[in-house]
Amino acid sequence: MGNAPPDPELLALHTATVRERWTLREIIDGCARHRFRGISPTRGRLVQAGVKEAARATRGSGLTVTALHGGGGFPATERKARQAALDDTRRAIDEAAILEARCLVLAEGTLPGESKDLAGAREMVRDGIGQVLDHARAAGVPLAIEPQHPMVCAGQGCVNTLAQALDLCDELDRGGAALGIAVDVYHVWWDPQLKVQIERAGDRRLLAFQISDWLRSSKDIVADRGMMGDGVIDLPLIRSWMEESGYRGFHEVEILSTSDWWRRDPDEVLATCRVRHQTAC
Amino acid sequence: MGNAPPDPELLALHTATVRERWTLREIIDGCARHRFRGISPTRGRLVQAGVKEAARATRGSGLTVTALHGGGGFPATERKARQAALDDTRRAIDEAAILEARCLVLAEGTLPGESKDLAGAREMVRDGIGQVLDHARAAGVPLAIEPQHPMVCAGQGCVNTLAQALDLCDELDRGGAALGIAVDVYHVWWDPQLKVQIERAGDRRLLAFQISDWLRSSKDIVADRGMMGDGVIDLPLIRSWMEESGYRGFHEVEILSTSDWWRRDPDEVLATCRVRHQTAC
Repeated sequence: MGNAPPDPELLALHTATVRERWTLREIIDGCARHRFRGISPTRGRLVQAGVKEAARATRGSGLTVTALHGGGGFPATERKARQAALDDTRRAIDEAAILEARCLVLAEGTLPGESKDLAGAREMVRDGIGQVLDHARAAGVPLAIEPQHPMVCAGQGCVNTLAQALDLCDELDRGGAALGIAVDVYHVWWDPQLKVQIERAGDRRLLAFQISDWLRSSKDIVADRGMMGDGVIDLPLIRSWMEESGYRGFHEVEILSTSDWWRRDPDEVLATCRVRHQTAC
Repeated sequence: MGNAPPDPELLALHTATVRERWTLREIIDGCARHRFRGISPTRGRLVQAGVKEAARATRGSGLTVTALHGGGGFPATERKARQAALDDTRRAIDEAAILEARCLVLAEGTLPGESKDLAGAREMVRDGIGQVLDHARAAGVPLAIEPQHPMVCAGQGCVNTLAQALDLCDELDRGGAALGIAVDVYHVWWDPQLKVQIERAGDRRLLAFQISDWLRSSKDIVADRGMMGDGVIDLPLIRSWMEESGYRGFHEVEILSTSDWWRRDPDEVLATCRVRHQTAC
């Protein structure tokens, strides 16, 4: 390790971290109180608050919207559902533009219905991204593909490695900057190709960086993430790879934690994030 | 799909599938009763029965020992523990030779103690395999590296993709046949590189093939595997890739299932395996 601690101004909050207790308005106020400079909301939170109202509130609090999370869901059995996913993703792009979000992180989707055709689902993801990319270019909102941990491949997302995500970027946006990746350490920390693929991505494709930790005792595949420093991920090392590749963006804390952090007072959660960002990242 | 069902003579049983209810002796008798032609025991089962006695029993029942599972555990903080793992792995090789096992499937190990040094753990795995390989060559027992699902990277094994395993084979055993891989569909079904890496492995490196299924409803990261046909894995497709690469070996059923199959009568489990091998694999 031996790295200097990260710039405290780069700390950002993914709204899911405190979603069980706070509304978006409360989260925005909490960020200001705890000197988080960035926020990355899910679309669910926006619906609650209204997009324009949310844009006003974040701007009013001096917060950068580091990413909006939503859209995607491209694989579907019926043509109608595939079309609905495209329409919905275009709406998500428009919402990201209103928020002046630095990118839209897609939830690509995976095997629809009873399907076992993983290659087919992956083709639908590729085709879906391809079909909304011009809309994203026109809106000035880069799209981020977030590789999902292989353990959620059946239920959540079928893009599962950085290499696979970057292959999609190269295929759909060669030489461009309309498409990139979101690096969530929880999803990718295990990847033997992690360093090489972060280098390959480079500044242009590195659109977001999400932090949390993998607990040694983790048993659950959905919502048992740890606070930075409580698990096995060498966060300073991965951050150093991001920085060596030119990434200068925010560090978004995303901790889904049914049994621990979601139960705590969000003010305690945010205060802990701030400390750990300096001591464990 | 459209493949013909697999040769029923290739059905084999990993002892873990019925480990909660049967001794090794009972498993051997059960295999004979249900016309399984192959068996792959863990070392824990051997200790129970005695290696020579187990070898006599499997031979007496006309069973091929498709693999012995054990050895490994190479990453350790203390030199003494690393040496103990090497000694233990050499004993496992000797046991595999007595059983006339077709290979020894290693449990490589992962992050020792409080370590977050994943690259270091992976180096210890590489070094450990390198140090026992001559012993394996002399004993005529090929060693199989079994890539483990990334969700068990922190607790169980730090070789997590076929590409990583095959890179190790190339580095330690270039051009040889002393080192290969075990393909367990549960661990690798999600890998975008699966087909390409099975092709890369080829007949020489494909030492074992393990089958089960990934349940859509799976929540547990350790022992919630499904019976073939009950989940999302396209087993006929993966088998076709194995066969196209020249694999002609057994299909070992390995189902770790705390809440379902481990609770059932093992005779029911084996009968179900036999049917599903023909209808879902």
